[in-house]
Order: sequence, then structure tokens, then C-alpha cells
Amino acid sequence: MDHFIKIDHIGIAVRDLDAAIETYRALTNIEDCHTEVVEEMKVKTAFFKIGDTNLELVCAVDESSPIHQFLEKNREGIHHMAFQTDDIRGDLKRLKDQGFKLINEEPMVGAHGKLIAFVHPKSTNGVLLELCQCEGSE
Amino acid sequence: MDHFIKIDHIGIAVRDLDAAIETYRALTNIEDCHTEVVEEMKVKTAFFKIGDTNLELVCAVDESSPIHQFLEKNREGIHHMAFQTDDIRGDLKRLKDQGFKLINEEPMVGAHGKLIAFVHPKSTNGVLLELCQCEGSE
Repeated sequence: MDHFIKIDHIGIAVRDLDAAIETYRALTNIEDCHTEVVEEMKVKTAFFKIGDTNLELVCAVDESSPIHQFLEKNREGIHHMAFQTDDIRGDLKRLKDQGFKLINEEPMVGAHGKLIAFVHPKSTNGVLLELCQCEGSE
Repeated sequence: MDHFIKIDHIGIAVRDLDAAIETYRALTNIEDCHTEVVEEMKVKTAFFKIGDTNLELVCAVDESSPIHQFLEKNREGIHHMAFQTDDIRGDLKRLKDQGFKLINEEPMVGAHGKLIAFVHPKSTNGVLLELCQCEGSE
């Protein structure tokens, strides 16, 4: 691969998903959003499509969720951003070889059934970075 | 207007712009970036185009910059996100009428000569939101 395809989404950690959905409906003037529980991450999410990317509102489903842990230490706000790739394993190898610190060396399954993996904010100026790849685009 | 056109950029506050540019060149595999000093905001910026949006690395040019103040209190990381609109004044009025807390009631001039205005994170689940409009699209 040469480049990431696009910014797939921007993840916003919220405490109350239903209230945040109403806020972002009012803000964006967009009624439709896709909601989904991602068991692997212990989160419930709502996606609003804006241009060719999405806002993802994300809340914890229980105290074991990384979002719960984030909100214990931080205020609500932008939690991560995600690049879409068509070669997540190749990118993970490239980034590791370049010295970026990976959280996941192997992809897992995230929202929309996509393969996802995170890069540690330590090596990206404080940005928790997700890579994601649509199923079937390997 | 019905909807925001797209996410124009995601702003990442950094301490050392040149070092961050090198990091994001390596990360994104993109050599080209557009750098610009925005006097009004007392910042120096570097934009990397990804899909139809951009990453904006942004550092303070002096201690009066909002980015300096942000980095006194926070670590480096995502600082704001920006929606592109073709009617920034109409959006500001709509958002104010809906109860969103505006930082700027009137647009000012930002990077690329765009009209910009900020919405306070208090009313957007902790997200510092920028609206921006290209010159000539009024």
C-alpha cells in the first residue's frame, strides 16, 4: 500500500450514549445514525456519516471497557481517530519496523465487522490511532 | 444548509512542529504537507491530506497562543475537529438558537484564508469544534 485510504472515523468517548446521540443529531442536523454493540471492546457505539468519514460516539457497556477506564481519568471528548487501510497487517508490520509502538500486533474485530488494531499514543504525539480494514478487502 | 459538507480537518496540538511533521510523514507515508503560520491564532500549522479530510499538526508560535495554553494543561494530542460548511454564519445562528455554547459569534480568518469559528466543548461532549468555510463559498 502507498497511503491510508481515508480517515474512517473519529471516536468520541461519552458517558451517556442516548443523550450524546441527541446532542449530535442537533449539532449535525443528521437524524440517522448506526448503533452497534462491539462485544470485544465492551462498548456501544453510534456512527454519524459526515462526508466520507464518520463521527463515532462510544460509551462503555461495563467497567471492564477501555472507555470506562478512559473516562475514569479523562473528561468526555475525542478518544481516537481511525485510518482506513486495505492492508492492515502490512501497515502494522511497517509501523512496527519504523519504531511506532503498537497496542495490537494482530488485528481484532471491531464495529461493522472490520479488522481493527490500535497504535499507542506515545509514538503519535498523543493520538490513539486505530487502523481499520473492511472485511473482504484483504 | 442541510448538513455540514465534510470533516475538514482534525487538529493535533504538538510541541515541536518539525519533529511532528517527520513523525506523521513516517506514519502516513505522505511526503507533502502544507505549512502555514496563522497570525490570528498565533499558531504554525502543517496539513497532511488524507482522503477528503486533513490532519492538521498545530504548534504555538508564542505563549499567547491558545495552543500554548492548551499544552500547559494537557498532553499533546487531538485538540479540535473542524466541519466544513458553506454557511458559517447561518450555522452559528442555528447552533446558538439550539443552545450550543459558541466561543466565536462572528467568524475570523484561519488557515488557508478560511472563515472559522469555534463551538465550546462544554456543549459538545468535550469536543472543541471548529466550523470553517472556504473563501468565496458564501
